[in-house]
Amino acid sequence: MTDAEPLQRLLAHYRSMPPVAVMDLRIAGYDGARLRLQAPLERHVNDKGCAFGGSLASMMTLASWGLVWLQLEAAGLEADIFVADSQIRYLAPLYADLQVEAELAPDADWPTFIATLRQRGRARASVIARAGLPGGGVASDFTARFVAIARPS
Amino acid sequence: MTDAEPLQRLLAHYRSMPPVAVMDLRIAGYDGARLRLQAPLERHVNDKGCAFGGSLASMMTLASWGLVWLQLEAAGLEADIFVADSQIRYLAPLYADLQVEAELAPDADWPTFIATLRQRGRARASVIARAGLPGGGVASDFTARFVAIARPS
Repeated sequence: MTDAEPLQRLLAHYRSMPPVAVMDLRIAGYDGARLRLQAPLERHVNDKGCAFGGSLASMMTLASWGLVWLQLEAAGLEADIFVADSQIRYLAPLYADLQVEAELAPDADWPTFIATLRQRGRARASVIARAGLPGGGVASDFTARFVAIARPS
Repeated sequence: MTDAEPLQRLLAHYRSMPPVAVMDLRIAGYDGARLRLQAPLERHVNDKGCAFGGSLASMMTLASWGLVWLQLEAAGLEADIFVADSQIRYLAPLYADLQVEAELAPDADWPTFIATLRQRGRARASVIARAGLPGGGVASDFTARFVAIARPS
């Protein structure tokens, strides 16, 4: 776990968005490369008693978005971060609290992303995320591209 | 618009799910082939003042799921409906209420889906959805596969 202050700012940022405020999410961990989020099943349960697909999509989108946000924060950059596209596979129903984890896609690196954003005012990052099953294994996985656009200072 | 009773049951079904109850969605129309849902932007706004990607994903997932539900209802079949995978493209930011529409993918037909479910107790359907921009055009589009599994009667 890196220092808590950026995570507290990220959490405040999440909660400032009305659709996220109602999700009851918390930041479960961040090691500089992987961001983990959690939310209680009872807030996200569907008609079959397992996690709603839209909630899993939102959690994995938010973990990925937050990971990009933390990287920009660490680099001292101000930018708006947009999700450009995403692919989700729902592999197994999840009958437990939502635990998701996001990290940069294996073919990318943060220094290149940050350098591109500094030079061009815009950069793309591919992020992968997954929602875990309680006993190990994956309930759903996710790949998405994000675009950061530098804010005029 | 077909008769209202199945739509009222669908709406009750949506609202019985805690993550959907907070979305303030309403059914805007159904012509037997296309299901339209709406939700107010203020409930789904992100840090940039436009619609949160996770909310768009949820709305398009729900419209698609609801469309499958209505087809099963019309056929008198009882089945659980799961989303198997989805792809979303976020094409333009949406600064207005969320309006989404779902229909069967062009290469599929409902009679085959229903017949397969009756014969095998399980069937797949590919559904497409989009979120519209107020002046026409598409804010985001969505393709997903759903699996219906007959409930033991």
